[in-house]
Amino acid sequence: MLDFTFFTPTKVFFGKDKHKEIGKIIKEYGFTKIMMQYGKNSIKRSGLYDTVVSAIRAEGIEIVEMGGVEPNPKLAFAKEAACIAKKEGVQMILAVGGGSVLDSSKYTAAGACFDGDMWDFPTKKHTPKKALPVGCILTHAAAGSEMSSSAVISYPEIGMKRGFNSDTNRCLVAVMNPELTYTVGAYQTACGVVDMMSHTMERYFSLCPPTELTDNVAEGILKAIIKAGKTAVENPSDYEARATLMWASSLAHNDLTGCGRENVLPVHQLEHALSGEYDGIAHGAGLAVLYPAWARFMYKKDAARFARFARNVWDIVEADDEEAARQGIIAMEDFFVSIGMPASLSDFDITTDCIDRLVDLCTFSKTRTVKSYVDMDEAVLREIFHLAFHKE
Amino acid sequence: MLDFTFFTPTKVFFGKDKHKEIGKIIKEYGFTKIMMQYGKNSIKRSGLYDTVVSAIRAEGIEIVEMGGVEPNPKLAFAKEAACIAKKEGVQMILAVGGGSVLDSSKYTAAGACFDGDMWDFPTKKHTPKKALPVGCILTHAAAGSEMSSSAVISYPEIGMKRGFNSDTNRCLVAVMNPELTYTVGAYQTACGVVDMMSHTMERYFSLCPPTELTDNVAEGILKAIIKAGKTAVENPSDYEARATLMWASSLAHNDLTGCGRENVLPVHQLEHALSGEYDGIAHGAGLAVLYPAWARFMYKKDAARFARFARNVWDIVEADDEEAARQGIIAMEDFFVSIGMPASLSDFDITTDCIDRLVDLCTFSKTRTVKSYVDMDEAVLREIFHLAFHKE
Repeated sequence: MLDFTFFTPTKVFFGKDKHKEIGKIIKEYGFTKIMMQYGKNSIKRSGLYDTVVSAIRAEGIEIVEMGGVEPNPKLAFAKEAACIAKKEGVQMILAVGGGSVLDSSKYTAAGACFDGDMWDFPTKKHTPKKALPVGCILTHAAAGSEMSSSAVISYPEIGMKRGFNSDTNRCLVAVMNPELTYTVGAYQTACGVVDMMSHTMERYFSLCPPTELTDNVAEGILKAIIKAGKTAVENPSDYEARATLMWASSLAHNDLTGCGRENVLPVHQLEHALSGEYDGIAHGAGLAVLYPAWARFMYKKDAARFARFARNVWDIVEADDEEAARQGIIAMEDFFVSIGMPASLSDFDITTDCIDRLVDLCTFSKTRTVKSYVDMDEAVLREIFHLAFHKE
Repeated sequence: MLDFTFFTPTKVFFGKDKHKEIGKIIKEYGFTKIMMQYGKNSIKRSGLYDTVVSAIRAEGIEIVEMGGVEPNPKLAFAKEAACIAKKEGVQMILAVGGGSVLDSSKYTAAGACFDGDMWDFPTKKHTPKKALPVGCILTHAAAGSEMSSSAVISYPEIGMKRGFNSDTNRCLVAVMNPELTYTVGAYQTACGVVDMMSHTMERYFSLCPPTELTDNVAEGILKAIIKAGKTAVENPSDYEARATLMWASSLAHNDLTGCGRENVLPVHQLEHALSGEYDGIAHGAGLAVLYPAWARFMYKKDAARFARFARNVWDIVEADDEEAARQGIIAMEDFFVSIGMPASLSDFDITTDCIDRLVDLCTFSKTRTVKSYVDMDEAVLREIFHLAFHKE
């Protein structure tokens, strides 16, 4: 077990109608003026907007609104929001939405306490020491941003999508009512399932010795996600399945599944290149194609671990490690397809012509490799992207 | 899944030599004067005392010492410590030790911010709203107090041992170096194993519908504890086993295993009566006898769940639920005995004569029942204590 620091200070309020308590929760911390970020009009259509705004105003708390956060949230938006947050003197950013709104809010919160260029956060030119507290009312189970230390932003002007990790990115409070995810469509639900599974698997398949406790926990979380994912896609109003996915999204990415392990998330780095380049590709859908491709390239490097994964998560009974590992990857791929995910990058209407550009993005223009079982240099990345164009 | 609040703000520093960083860690929070609590002389013999004191003083931080915390820590000691903490104006309590030192420190921390009788905390006459921050350097994996909201204290003058739960009981920081537990003897190691297993099982067997995600996580934690427990008892310097137990003790009791479930801990309430009455009985040893006794009384009330436990934790293959459940309880009991735990209350040199007194303590002199699958009134408690005198 490698040394680690574990820090999940977020106070989680989980359950039915919990969002109605948001005013009281914010008041408890003494905040009197907040910024509320949200996406497009869906929270207005659903009535969530009215409920939340009323609950907050009922406690005499002032709201500065920043609606219009886009999927793959944009740096320009967060910059503008940070500027307004400073000017208005808001004490907290409340994200009402999913991972995109949360990540936009996190960048805003850090930007509001910083006078330089916010792109310095992901490029590591500046590590935020301070940020406004962020709270959220979660409406989508996927990114795990509600408890994670990470925030990812797109900078379309230069065709980049990059994240940064910092304890200042940990939410102060997260309000999670699984019922708010009933209206998430099957495709987006499935994308969320893949995203949270990837957060768990990235740590599970990181470069370090086995960690029995963390491994068992990760396998248990994966099995619960697979079962609940199937149910939620088929029956969007199944409370238990929605609740399982919502809580799993947090546990998958709050570092619990990485305790004592390396935390590198290689496939996420490939996918950020992909959906950074193609704004129409949902992060989860990109992962659904790239994860099996990465696994097919890597599994022989640690067949014992991939075999354990196959047996404990996918109930593969094959005795030979390498063959079990291969069957496990196929089972994963079949599961992704069964919940409506693409099987190949060609399903996104792109061709292998994009590979050069993706490799360039992953390697930060040939200035780095991506760590995994094999150091992923240009040649390796190229092969993995090629595999992602062909289902086995 | 029942509604829940999840709050684990403790910052965990886990790994080799982490205790040497304690001075820097405390300084990071800006504290300049702390109280350090510890037990008897073992930390002086091992050299830990010198290392810790030097590391703290090297940062110019003043230490008020309170050595001498006893196992089953005493209210009188905590009262005195709270009084000194107030007088000296310390800003933090640092516990160097196991669960007893931690619980004593937690009572002290709450008492230092309260002017009334500290026995009002467990009797619920007063709920602490504020407490000094508590940090710890953990030397024993068992109680999970390093991340839990609970603190238990003994009041021998009236023959009582009682706990209270409060978010003010959550540690600010927990420093965990598994190597510090190498010197914990086999018996105490086994007691710790039983304690952390019980923390997990109490929530697993609470009165509510199955919660797939939490159940999977709990089973994974239990399996890791069982494997590492056996190893650590046999080979006290096995880092991986010690690390697994140390981290498992935290996860077992930081509420992760209770998310979406009832949190009542009935068997703990029976055991607190037992070790409150008999100071020589270690908490874990008491649980090792009482848990199987409780299970033998209860399993037919929810055979499906006890059968799941038997199959997923103890690899029982029996198809019939009730029979599988019974075999699972025997497997648990055999495991406890295999790591050196007693099988019967008579192993503590007490007789069935004590049962009246224990029942009286559990029912707070016949003013309450203890909730479980069956409401545990006097008759039920009596039967369970009788079962605890006879191994099946």
